[in-house]
Amino acid sequence: MGLIVQKYGGTSVADLERIRSVAKRVARTYDGGNDVVIIISAMAGVTDSLVEMANQISDSPDKRELDVLLATGEQTTASLLAMTLHAMGYPAQSLLGHQARVVTDGTFGNARIVDIGAQRINELIENRDIVVIAGFQGCDINGNITTLGRGGSDTSAVAIASALKADVCEIYTDVDGIYTADPNICEKARKISVVSYDEMLNMASLGAKVLQIRSVGFAKKYNVPIHVRSSFSEEEGTMVVNENSGMERLVVSAVTHDKDQSRITLKKVPDQPGVAAKIFSPISEAGVVVDMIIQNTRAEGQTDLTFTVPRESFADAMKIEKAVAEDIGAEAVLGDENISKVSVVGVGMRNHSGVASKMFTTLAKENINIMMISTSEIRISCIIEEKYTELAVRVLHSAFDLDKEE
Amino acid sequence: MGLIVQKYGGTSVADLERIRSVAKRVARTYDGGNDVVIIISAMAGVTDSLVEMANQISDSPDKRELDVLLATGEQTTASLLAMTLHAMGYPAQSLLGHQARVVTDGTFGNARIVDIGAQRINELIENRDIVVIAGFQGCDINGNITTLGRGGSDTSAVAIASALKADVCEIYTDVDGIYTADPNICEKARKISVVSYDEMLNMASLGAKVLQIRSVGFAKKYNVPIHVRSSFSEEEGTMVVNENSGMERLVVSAVTHDKDQSRITLKKVPDQPGVAAKIFSPISEAGVVVDMIIQNTRAEGQTDLTFTVPRESFADAMKIEKAVAEDIGAEAVLGDENISKVSVVGVGMRNHSGVASKMFTTLAKENINIMMISTSEIRISCIIEEKYTELAVRVLHSAFDLDKEE
Repeated sequence: MGLIVQKYGGTSVADLERIRSVAKRVARTYDGGNDVVIIISAMAGVTDSLVEMANQISDSPDKRELDVLLATGEQTTASLLAMTLHAMGYPAQSLLGHQARVVTDGTFGNARIVDIGAQRINELIENRDIVVIAGFQGCDINGNITTLGRGGSDTSAVAIASALKADVCEIYTDVDGIYTADPNICEKARKISVVSYDEMLNMASLGAKVLQIRSVGFAKKYNVPIHVRSSFSEEEGTMVVNENSGMERLVVSAVTHDKDQSRITLKKVPDQPGVAAKIFSPISEAGVVVDMIIQNTRAEGQTDLTFTVPRESFADAMKIEKAVAEDIGAEAVLGDENISKVSVVGVGMRNHSGVASKMFTTLAKENINIMMISTSEIRISCIIEEKYTELAVRVLHSAFDLDKEE
Repeated sequence: MGLIVQKYGGTSVADLERIRSVAKRVARTYDGGNDVVIIISAMAGVTDSLVEMANQISDSPDKRELDVLLATGEQTTASLLAMTLHAMGYPAQSLLGHQARVVTDGTFGNARIVDIGAQRINELIENRDIVVIAGFQGCDINGNITTLGRGGSDTSAVAIASALKADVCEIYTDVDGIYTADPNICEKARKISVVSYDEMLNMASLGAKVLQIRSVGFAKKYNVPIHVRSSFSEEEGTMVVNENSGMERLVVSAVTHDKDQSRITLKKVPDQPGVAAKIFSPISEAGVVVDMIIQNTRAEGQTDLTFTVPRESFADAMKIEKAVAEDIGAEAVLGDENISKVSVVGVGMRNHSGVASKMFTTLAKENINIMMISTSEIRISCIIEEKYTELAVRVLHSAFDLDKEE
């Protein structure tokens, strides 16, 4: 018995039948003697349809009004779920973002939560009401409706769980947890029972499909235990918790991959102060996010500079860098879209040496060439040829003892 | 130049193209130097679809949650119109019911407006913003979302026009004004340029298709001039104003008819105290609205009692009255669904005698039998056989000099 926050994503509430399934699960949790607060997304596809409608009006619809429009998606599902619970004989009340006092800054379309006034929610909980809160939305201090950006309902849920000091924030989605690798390419991947916030933050490519990365940062800051699980089964999913919560300590917890990568190399760049700024400022201004950067010093005051950008930004970045190369007197700009990033992630790395050398050796055994390397405290990433991605994931998964028992 | 409140109904905002037409009209009004406040309905059919969705969950969906659901309809159109105005280069802001401080009582589904805090709207007006307010919705003092019942956007518009002391409240709809009779059955019907609040209130069957009757009562109370007009043309419509506004004084302003009538007669009712209560209490408790009642005293302490109810309530009422007749010892219950009500309405009647006799004579000339009669200060209604409805309307229209010039 305790206070449980449950968040249901768009596929979990895609139609009235699924909303009824959600209501049954909520009712079971409530009948177990728990206080229950639900955060709910819009029906799958609804937000996209609304954005499309707005884009028929303008290429860049007014951001304030777009948020008013998008907020109807979660308003609809919140009222339908509360209605369904009532029809089943349970006391329930929906609250919209402004009613739940989810106060944000005024950045329409990507607002940050600045405060949650838990009083109204707590009053309802004390009355043993099931509280159904529209996720993804809030209001600024002037009462304007704001939305939190893609996947914002996860952040709503974690923030509300934090404000209410909930025992757990359950995130219901269409997958049953976080895996040691993408099961689509690594059949020996297994579900992770416990993972730390930092590992989740470093597993973006595996985790982002399941949990909005911003919400993980929030959960870490306020130490909110998250339970990621499927709304279509009763199985336990993956707990995302503080590193010191007595977790099992594998050296490597997961192998991730990201094919959304491309590489750009500027050859024979004059090695002078200020050159790096000339290379990276223009693409940053164009909104392109640079991931890895490697600089190899050559003889005679020249250097080769290589960096990676998301594949969708490749064409833009190439165009910009060709102009830059001419400007600074670099010899050539080379591009490669056929690369991918393979990473091993694990908090255990902090206390284990030899992870990097094991990774490199494992890839070398398969004749997979490593083009670039980057590391963080709990992650090592290698850029390789795209065609080797699946093989690399599988051999690393085995090498770091992640394969599930036969 | 002045402050103009414009209300657009569901057919006027049925799709993005029509919303664009509305935006153009709003822009023209604004460009004329006027301050403009818009009240907007949901897209035609949307409220019905939402109600249908709720009815799939329960036969009697929770009223609080139904209001949250229904409120999304006007929220959608308000944001889309504001967005469209922005795309055209006009400053506009949408306000939902609670943002516009439309405070109501807590009667979900049929709330009454108790207060409008005009400050927020006035601030936007002073900033020369076009204010687009979601009609039909408000919030109670606890911040719960409420709706005002069918056609409630008209009431929103009149109430807001009153609070802002607007110069006029324009109600845009899919007809171009109020007619002297239904043009579908009386081709000589002509548009009325000015009508009084009281006449509108007595012309329910003609007016209700155009303007929510409750909003007329509100307009009368606060003396808000209403201009009913078409959103598909530039023509002047019908002004609904105070009786003393120098109106043209016809004796009869309009001939109305209502086929949604049925008649029930209890034969040989024992004429004792308390019998009427026994007859009418049960159907009132069943939510059936009785319109006219006639009692003919017979010999020997018996009476015949006849009354009318809406046709949709006929079956229910007959069933109830058959039980009542047995209980009180009445001889028989007779029913007739083939009747209609024809009325003449006009403030001029107050100062003219002979209207009733002219009406009866006109109908008699056509051999139309009058079954029941009821009158108010400015209206005379007759129940006749349904098949004579169209003929009765036409001959009365001519007799009271309402036919348009050839």
